[in-house]
Amino acid sequence: MSDEKQRPLILVTNDDGVFAKGILSLAEEMLKFGEVIVVAPDKPQSGMGHAVTINDMLRLYKVKYDLPVAAAYSCSGTPVDCVKLAISRVMHRKPDLVVSGVNHGSNSSINVIYSGTMSAAMEGAVESIPAIGFSLLDNGAEADFDAAKKVAGTVVKNALEKGIPQGVCLNVNIPKGEYSQIAGIRICRQARAFWEDNFDTRIDPSGKEYHWLTGEFKNEDKGEDTDEVALENNFVSIVPVHYDLTAYHAIAHLKNWKL
Amino acid sequence: MSDEKQRPLILVTNDDGVFAKGILSLAEEMLKFGEVIVVAPDKPQSGMGHAVTINDMLRLYKVKYDLPVAAAYSCSGTPVDCVKLAISRVMHRKPDLVVSGVNHGSNSSINVIYSGTMSAAMEGAVESIPAIGFSLLDNGAEADFDAAKKVAGTVVKNALEKGIPQGVCLNVNIPKGEYSQIAGIRICRQARAFWEDNFDTRIDPSGKEYHWLTGEFKNEDKGEDTDEVALENNFVSIVPVHYDLTAYHAIAHLKNWKL
Repeated sequence: MSDEKQRPLILVTNDDGVFAKGILSLAEEMLKFGEVIVVAPDKPQSGMGHAVTINDMLRLYKVKYDLPVAAAYSCSGTPVDCVKLAISRVMHRKPDLVVSGVNHGSNSSINVIYSGTMSAAMEGAVESIPAIGFSLLDNGAEADFDAAKKVAGTVVKNALEKGIPQGVCLNVNIPKGEYSQIAGIRICRQARAFWEDNFDTRIDPSGKEYHWLTGEFKNEDKGEDTDEVALENNFVSIVPVHYDLTAYHAIAHLKNWKL
Repeated sequence: MSDEKQRPLILVTNDDGVFAKGILSLAEEMLKFGEVIVVAPDKPQSGMGHAVTINDMLRLYKVKYDLPVAAAYSCSGTPVDCVKLAISRVMHRKPDLVVSGVNHGSNSSINVIYSGTMSAAMEGAVESIPAIGFSLLDNGAEADFDAAKKVAGTVVKNALEKGIPQGVCLNVNIPKGEYSQIAGIRICRQARAFWEDNFDTRIDPSGKEYHWLTGEFKNEDKGEDTDEVALENNFVSIVPVHYDLTAYHAIAHLKNWKL
């Protein structure tokens, strides 16, 4: 018997797939803080939102990681499935922390609701586990995750020491570029910024139409306290996020309805 | 030229598929209020959350509806894709209302984050369109949508007359049973109720493991103002829901971190 505190048990997941550059960086950084188990999708799952597999079965396969993690698995499901399956079937106890990412591309403002990365973190929060999603504003093949890795270290150190309020997870976005260029880290609110959707409609070889989603990102919310403005000024943005979607401010309006 | 007000243009979608009983009931009820266009998934999409298709193309096919709707289409994508594609490619103008459902099964409390039905409504809110998701607490093959249809009529009448605050959509859950048994309609907050997950792990004919998600729903939040308590008492629950996931109450805590 020892009085020594148990090393934190950390679940690492993502939505870009188990061998993406971003998750390898994150898993490597997490090894400084505790025992690391990786359970991540076997294929890219970007844009999967909080999708969960209820009409199909799931597969889980052990994979070889070139890092001294305790175990690494690929899962046939969504990022949320990975978290659920890891906790129920892979880990010997409930993890002390769930980290997701580092995503190849931004998950700031409205993107949080479409993001598989953030949905995995949210699932951690739903299960009362401190959870953080990390995203780098660079989805190029040559993206450099060095700055994101260092930021993840700083944020995780604080989370393990000071805790995250129950039912909350963190949405951390990191500007593109070198660590030395980062202006600082700001606690923010989600900007009211949106996609102006469009579809690129084409004709297939048999003459039938098909549609590709495209769109332009529009931000008219220039609040100094927003994630978008922080990122524009080369700050890392941290938005605390929760799963109570109740729009409390709208309740009074609805109580005037004739129901 | 006429002074007559244009009839409302209503988009009807769901996550159970374009020919599900629930959407047929909802589309029929909406014909009382305006011009109806249906764009819904070509296959069940339950549990898809706010998934959006970004790495694949989408198909849209005209389908025959036995109702005097202006048009009906099946779409190869998720519920959120249906809303985006309907607005960009099918409708001649931005709809006045998006309704989603009637879902075959509950979307109360935490289920809102996994729900394709509610994500379609949320997408309407993101696009600044009044939007409502309807769900019936009955996923049996013989489910009777008569009560849900009447409730949808009452709620939509109010929404068209009094509006829904911008950026908010409504999560309406309807108890199982006959309309005469409904105790009333309550404006509620989302209960802090959760799934205790489990997986049913089996061995396939070639000896490999596979996993089915199962779980038990647990509600320890007995607040009189919650959707769960309303539904337990045979009330219809309406929770106003928004897409600003910022946990404002957690910002002060995070400002004490050493970042």
